[in-house]
Amino acid sequence: MSSYPQVTFSRTTFHGPSVLKNRKETISRTTVKAQLEQLRNTGRYDCFKLQWHPIYDDHSTWPVPKSLFWDSDVGKWIEGACYSLVHEYDAAIDAAVRELVDMIRSAQQPNGYLNVYFTVVEPQARWSNIRDQHELYNAGHLIEGALAHENYYKNGLLLEPIVKYVKLIRSVFGPDAQQRHAYPGHPEIELALLRLYSETKNQDAYDLAQYFIEERGNSTGQNGMLYYDWEEKQRGDTPWKRPNAYPMSHSHWYNQSHTPILQQKTVEGHAVRAMYLYTAVADLLHLDHVGLHTYKQNHEYFNALQTLWNNMVDKKMYLTGGIGAMEQWEGFGQDYFLPQGSDEGGCYSETCASIGVMMLAERLLHLDLDSRYADVMELQLYNTVMTAMSLDGKAFTYVNQLASSNKDKSARETWFECSCCPPNLMRLYGSLGGYLWDFGQENDSAFVNVHLYTTAQVQFEASGEKVELIQESNWPWGGIVSFKLKSTTPVITRLRIPSWSEGNYKVCLSPPLNDTSVTKGYLTLPASYTSQNPSFIIHFGGFEPRFISPHPYTNQNTLTLARGPIIYCVEDADNTWEKNHFKDITISAKARVLEEKRDCIGESFVGLRSTGRVRRLDTWTGRQAGLEPGSSGEVSALADERELVFVPYYLRANRGDEGHMRVGLVRSS
Amino acid sequence: MSSYPQVTFSRTTFHGPSVLKNRKETISRTTVKAQLEQLRNTGRYDCFKLQWHPIYDDHSTWPVPKSLFWDSDVGKWIEGACYSLVHEYDAAIDAAVRELVDMIRSAQQPNGYLNVYFTVVEPQARWSNIRDQHELYNAGHLIEGALAHENYYKNGLLLEPIVKYVKLIRSVFGPDAQQRHAYPGHPEIELALLRLYSETKNQDAYDLAQYFIEERGNSTGQNGMLYYDWEEKQRGDTPWKRPNAYPMSHSHWYNQSHTPILQQKTVEGHAVRAMYLYTAVADLLHLDHVGLHTYKQNHEYFNALQTLWNNMVDKKMYLTGGIGAMEQWEGFGQDYFLPQGSDEGGCYSETCASIGVMMLAERLLHLDLDSRYADVMELQLYNTVMTAMSLDGKAFTYVNQLASSNKDKSARETWFECSCCPPNLMRLYGSLGGYLWDFGQENDSAFVNVHLYTTAQVQFEASGEKVELIQESNWPWGGIVSFKLKSTTPVITRLRIPSWSEGNYKVCLSPPLNDTSVTKGYLTLPASYTSQNPSFIIHFGGFEPRFISPHPYTNQNTLTLARGPIIYCVEDADNTWEKNHFKDITISAKARVLEEKRDCIGESFVGLRSTGRVRRLDTWTGRQAGLEPGSSGEVSALADERELVFVPYYLRANRGDEGHMRVGLVRSS
Repeated sequence: MSSYPQVTFSRTTFHGPSVLKNRKETISRTTVKAQLEQLRNTGRYDCFKLQWHPIYDDHSTWPVPKSLFWDSDVGKWIEGACYSLVHEYDAAIDAAVRELVDMIRSAQQPNGYLNVYFTVVEPQARWSNIRDQHELYNAGHLIEGALAHENYYKNGLLLEPIVKYVKLIRSVFGPDAQQRHAYPGHPEIELALLRLYSETKNQDAYDLAQYFIEERGNSTGQNGMLYYDWEEKQRGDTPWKRPNAYPMSHSHWYNQSHTPILQQKTVEGHAVRAMYLYTAVADLLHLDHVGLHTYKQNHEYFNALQTLWNNMVDKKMYLTGGIGAMEQWEGFGQDYFLPQGSDEGGCYSETCASIGVMMLAERLLHLDLDSRYADVMELQLYNTVMTAMSLDGKAFTYVNQLASSNKDKSARETWFECSCCPPNLMRLYGSLGGYLWDFGQENDSAFVNVHLYTTAQVQFEASGEKVELIQESNWPWGGIVSFKLKSTTPVITRLRIPSWSEGNYKVCLSPPLNDTSVTKGYLTLPASYTSQNPSFIIHFGGFEPRFISPHPYTNQNTLTLARGPIIYCVEDADNTWEKNHFKDITISAKARVLEEKRDCIGESFVGLRSTGRVRRLDTWTGRQAGLEPGSSGEVSALADERELVFVPYYLRANRGDEGHMRVGLVRSS
Repeated sequence: MSSYPQVTFSRTTFHGPSVLKNRKETISRTTVKAQLEQLRNTGRYDCFKLQWHPIYDDHSTWPVPKSLFWDSDVGKWIEGACYSLVHEYDAAIDAAVRELVDMIRSAQQPNGYLNVYFTVVEPQARWSNIRDQHELYNAGHLIEGALAHENYYKNGLLLEPIVKYVKLIRSVFGPDAQQRHAYPGHPEIELALLRLYSETKNQDAYDLAQYFIEERGNSTGQNGMLYYDWEEKQRGDTPWKRPNAYPMSHSHWYNQSHTPILQQKTVEGHAVRAMYLYTAVADLLHLDHVGLHTYKQNHEYFNALQTLWNNMVDKKMYLTGGIGAMEQWEGFGQDYFLPQGSDEGGCYSETCASIGVMMLAERLLHLDLDSRYADVMELQLYNTVMTAMSLDGKAFTYVNQLASSNKDKSARETWFECSCCPPNLMRLYGSLGGYLWDFGQENDSAFVNVHLYTTAQVQFEASGEKVELIQESNWPWGGIVSFKLKSTTPVITRLRIPSWSEGNYKVCLSPPLNDTSVTKGYLTLPASYTSQNPSFIIHFGGFEPRFISPHPYTNQNTLTLARGPIIYCVEDADNTWEKNHFKDITISAKARVLEEKRDCIGESFVGLRSTGRVRRLDTWTGRQAGLEPGSSGEVSALADERELVFVPYYLRANRGDEGHMRVGLVRSS
């Protein structure tokens, strides 16, 4: 049975009300069509007709012409649309997918090549700039689109040309002397190829993915040089010519090719590239794990992923789950460099990067069932990922700063020139059911590992018998989750204990469970038990508001309110007096916090209310610190009290305010 | 009478013991010779012989070949050596200067051209890369060297070829159709030309400096383009080819050419370039002020300088006086972005940049007698500038971080490949007397404006009479300064009130002075008064230890000890238990601080002693902040007490320790 959320999601139904169900429905009913409209309006929809488009005359950007990603936008839309069709049929969506697939088929070249830009605009430049020009990235998204298409339509119309294209790519890249010893500048195709292999046993796909992963960062891979340096030389480019995302010459860490993956100790560079790459590495290990292939370096790569994951989570992740402080390369800064906003040193926290963390966490859970991955997956989902789409499903964020500034207000856009994030949200929410739980056969039993709580049910078969597990809860607002298991075959159930409720949960079972020890954050209910107690309830604490703060080495002396998996912020929609992005609002960890049930655009949530004080900076005006008279050990004086209204970070910028917002407030004593 | 410290310093004698006298003597007796040795060992000494040197075969760097600045190193050494000769004759130094001047003369081309690299290595590339290749910068330092040489030798041997070279440069650059409408990539020649004009009335020099200043940042100056963009095109370079110091294409703010100076509202880019440029602007205004020239845009440029100065001092200056957080472009970051070390986001604080601040402050004092310039000048001198040279005068720092890290320990070098800082220290200390005070004729009186306190005397003539002012003090350790005036002509004396002693000083005079009001930080003793009271004492408070902290918007929740003009640090030479760069040492503003008289390598100073506590970060290990359970409003627990020994920041890295050092300690309550 496939374990990919992109496949398994169809086994899950969101049968009752929840925040997640709302998002899924918004995607299906609004976002898929709104984005189709964007594809049509911008020229992307028709691009596979291979006609000239005025944007192709724009040579103002290098190395990425403005239309370079168009194939991927179409591929991602097809993928998301197919997930949506599974849930809810829509004739217009169906017709658009069919037309797009026809156009894609017609665009394929006799040798199998399939890329709009390098067919229409610069055919002579094919495969000449693997580092920057996204040919393989686009191919990856076409593969993922084809897999989703095949799952829904089962007619081979997209898969067939894509497999032909993969065969061509496999002939171009590889270890043989006449092949290019390259690997994608923007990883993506690796994870797509492994899924293709997993679904179709296409050996080209597996070998190519493995080659890309193992060859990456080989400093003498091509004619004694790093491939990208060799390639640059072939193009006649000087090493001093470089993309804007490369702060210095040869900043190959930008795309994680500075050293082989096994030698990488810290997550560096472009965050989305890193997440897509490491997701593929995890999947390579997983395919070995489930016996689909024998991968010899299992242990080493697993250790590398552990090191990278820990570095990311412990030192380079915002408390909203966001990753990437640096705008220039859309990626990671130094350890503990996590300013809240772009006026304080940087805060990028791209939507796609957090989707990538979810993808990586999901794969890691299959290698190592440990709640630390699922905890982070949930943190991403309810915070950085969820804040990226407006409640109406029509507007998006690309970056997800923790504090606004005059330069970067808290605001949304309907589309972006580089529009990777909106269709990525379609894909993520479309396949969301697949992230809730894993399930399958384990020795003589079925099993369900429950990662995320909500109201949903899953159905699958084990030992030829139907298994159904239903969970119902008011998550993320309340911690009571009731389960009902319907199965004639024994089922082991494992329940994630969120770290923020650690030591603060109880399972309501009668008779009581003997062994309630928790292994790596999961509580196991043995098959013998659940067959006796098909209904059980788990009650999690941790739903009282709590103050959290980032690691002291971040130099962020701030407090943030959290409750369950939800991170809160203040914004001027509620706190209308604020005109300076809450820069001068302080709060004490001793402040009393009140909860209130609220409603926003038809969706209820738990709001919080507390009291802070304004810090007065008058005394600082015009005086260089080293020159101050007297002993000025005082933190700035605190003046007026302010009532503070907090809403979930995911709700920000939905209510037409001026865009003042902040997650972490200055701590006062 | 010239007002340039490079000229007036010779009127000042450091007649009694002081920290400043120690430094000056170390420079004269050790540093000048040590650096001469470096010139000889590296090939710089002989470079004007125009022979091939193996370094010219090194093409690994672009756009700056490793020998590109050699002319300036020689020029700066000659300048510093000539200042030293004024104080103390040394036959070996004298001989070296003479030989170097002979070589420079012999290197001049028939048309007046005078640059080693572009004569020996790439003669065809002359004037082809004004943005990056330092031809004009080198010329500037040769001019400054020639002025110092002429003041001492008065034989025209260096000035004569330099004036010829200036004439050539004047013909190449300017507004005429056949001239290049360019301005130096690294400003320096502007301030040198204005001094040349001031000393010699060379009109070419004035016109060229004015042109360079006014043309800078003209977005349509050359064939409708910014000069540097046009020039790049002429070279056949793509806009995507750029120096490593340019983070993105067209980061022209790097050298302050992104917009005309009058439109610049914030200090940006390379800090040394900015300081040299604005010093020249201030001098252009000053030449107008003293009637040497009529400069029409006086007021506008003065306002621009005010805006830039305020931005720098209020928002981009460390409390040591250091400027420039960003290593990549050796310059300014965003407002309030002032991390203490390179592992916290950056701290560059280049030595030359602080020398540049002193130069700019000194010029501004002539336009606007306001202690805020002199306060910053003194802050630089005793902290960032003084920390840049070891007490033995043989080792230097280039960057002056406020906190060390494993990557960048607190350490010194004897020389640098790009060795701008060591000879700049020679120049600064050599002309230091010129920064202590201004003096001259003012209507019917003489005047002395005293900016810096120490033990020194100045002699000058006013109305044909000799004026002598003597100050004696234990500065920077104690605040009692006694003055003795010897003059037969009336003398107005103005005394700077340091901002840290504000409201906390007294003048001991009998009979008392009637009007003790302070104007812009200066107390005026009228001529009528000083003629009656030629001896007077001023007693400044502010010499008790005080805690200071950077602006809250820096997100640096730290406390630093200061006393008088001295900023203190902790280092492991005294606190030998420290192994983590004092990252986890906290201190409270309520902590008791003790003073102790100490001695380091024969120089006495006031040390400080206090008590801090170690913060414990055990609870943070391996837990992502957003996932913490419970209400974690606590700052990390504080554990063991530590006795902390503080020394002046300028003393750091003199005692062979492991290089752990920090200026700002985490604040505890």
